Amino acid sequence: MGRPDPKNVKQVGCIGSGTIGAGFAAQFLANGYDVIAQDPGRDARDFLERLLDQAWPVLEQIGLKTGASRERLRFTHDIEEAVSGAEFVQESVPEDLEFKVRVYERLEELVPPEIVIGSSTSSFPMTEIQKRCKYPERTVVARPINPPYLIIIPLIEIIGGEKTDVAILDWAAAFYEAAGNRVLRMEKEINGFMANRLQTALFREALHMIAAGQATVAQVDDCLTDGLGLRWSCMGPFATFSLAAGDRGLGPFMDLLGSVEWRAPLVTESPLPDWSPELRARIVDQAQEVIAGRTIPLIEERNNTIRDVSRANASGGRSGIIR
Amino acid sequence: MGRPDPKNVKQVGCIGSGTIGAGFAAQFLANGYDVIAQDPGRDARDFLERLLDQAWPVLEQIGLKTGASRERLRFTHDIEEAVSGAEFVQESVPEDLEFKVRVYERLEELVPPEIVIGSSTSSFPMTEIQKRCKYPERTVVARPINPPYLIIIPLIEIIGGEKTDVAILDWAAAFYEAAGNRVLRMEKEINGFMANRLQTALFREALHMIAAGQATVAQVDDCLTDGLGLRWSCMGPFATFSLAAGDRGLGPFMDLLGSVEWRAPLVTESPLPDWSPELRARIVDQAQEVIAGRTIPLIEERNNTIRDVSRANASGGRSGIIR
Repeated sequence: MGRPDPKNVKQVGCIGSGTIGAGFAAQFLANGYDVIAQDPGRDARDFLERLLDQAWPVLEQIGLKTGASRERLRFTHDIEEAVSGAEFVQESVPEDLEFKVRVYERLEELVPPEIVIGSSTSSFPMTEIQKRCKYPERTVVARPINPPYLIIIPLIEIIGGEKTDVAILDWAAAFYEAAGNRVLRMEKEINGFMANRLQTALFREALHMIAAGQATVAQVDDCLTDGLGLRWSCMGPFATFSLAAGDRGLGPFMDLLGSVEWRAPLVTESPLPDWSPELRARIVDQAQEVIAGRTIPLIEERNNTIRDVSRANASGGRSGIIR
Repeated sequence: MGRPDPKNVKQVGCIGSGTIGAGFAAQFLANGYDVIAQDPGRDARDFLERLLDQAWPVLEQIGLKTGASRERLRFTHDIEEAVSGAEFVQESVPEDLEFKVRVYERLEELVPPEIVIGSSTSSFPMTEIQKRCKYPERTVVARPINPPYLIIIPLIEIIGGEKTDVAILDWAAAFYEAAGNRVLRMEKEINGFMANRLQTALFREALHMIAAGQATVAQVDDCLTDGLGLRWSCMGPFATFSLAAGDRGLGPFMDLLGSVEWRAPLVTESPLPDWSPELRARIVDQAQEVIAGRTIPLIEERNNTIRDVSRANASGGRSGIIR
């Protein structure tokens, strides 16, 4: 058989049903797929059911795709049963490179070469995982933000290994979009992927502040939920700076980054990269696709979105400041 | 006269009406205060009016405090007129230390010593700003997240200088809470304040990725709006990790930070602080006040909040993923 239409996949096999694997199973179920979830663990079935019990009410409130049902889940301890008939395979086994490599060797015996395999790995580049594959061209990394079943955190990072076929990356992007994700397609294999790098940079700075007695855990979390996270949930740092720059434009604003003020140890643990006209130009050029001509609409979009996000936070259980 | 009740302030003087100063004026107006906004700039009045035109519709939708009205704003170029009768003074002049110090010298001639003065500075510790004050004990730094008028980004960092009276910090915290802020009261004077340090650490990591050709500006912003920001708008990193840790608990999870995996250059530009049993214990202890016994409720709170935040983002103009 040929490769299925990525927008018309019916059956997915989930290999590994830990937090991430079970989360993917929930996402796929809510999006109307038949799912066979596999895990060798004795308690894996119970874990999966508990996770579905937690996730399903919210997924119903978000809105299930037509035909979506928990009844369309099958659990098995057996890999062969899990991938039999699967039109896509999501691998979410433990983060042990050698173990993953062996899982892929086993999958290749069972999964036809035209079927795409996505890995949830948060640690390893696909180039390492696929190194002993006979059909490495159909393997991609697809890293969600936990919990994947809450695809209302829609981000998923997709990236191939050296041997991954570009056409497969196109297929995977179309598949995950159809499954409700917002695909962030990365070009370069890096350690930890983008979301991990960005959140870890912030987290490590927080650790330094806690270690220095400058902040507490509660202050760090409040700083995110009441401030930075609220802003970033509707506007990233570059869009934010484009607003801060105002009429000056982002270019002159970016020049600050090379200035003494920014060279000073405002953030002692996080050095600035070498500043160059090339870097400045790259940022300004790339920013155009995000902010070009949007300054005023951007303000309204931000204001309206933050208004509603804040209402949502208030309604969601966090003490809000809506009067 | 004595110091007014912080919850019953009627008139506020805003010194400096740039983006931050004018934003504070909008916040105070929306919360029912009489506001006299001052700025020497020829275009300052127009700038303030434009900012109010942008902010007021949203502030009305959020809900104005009883009696709140744009009619209760007066603009002047004259500092003396701005602080005359003020029960609180918000200083938001340009970020030039010597200039700020001179402004405070002038304010001391005009503002009775029992009246509290808050500085919007993002750069300077109050110890530096208050150094030539006769009445330094009534001066505090109160740093908002831009835009302050959107107190639906409620965070405000409050911190005193060496000469600031602790009773004044209590007063200022009560005042800003009454004015709609969520007060983050910091104990140690640091460069840049907490929100700046955390966001700058993330931003600089993003710059490294862009400089290395690993990511684009659009990918960085999407990674925040579709992923990290959405999560952080309802749950900070420590609460997030407490969920990721699950039954293991945060302590063992934190031990990972000292492990080889985390020592590895997952985030090449952001080193981890020296890891110690003391630091581990501090984090675990402090985390209790945030997460103690909340693991399951925390999951529901997160799920419900992210559901609504995502709906809000969709309604707010960003292309959402709500079906």
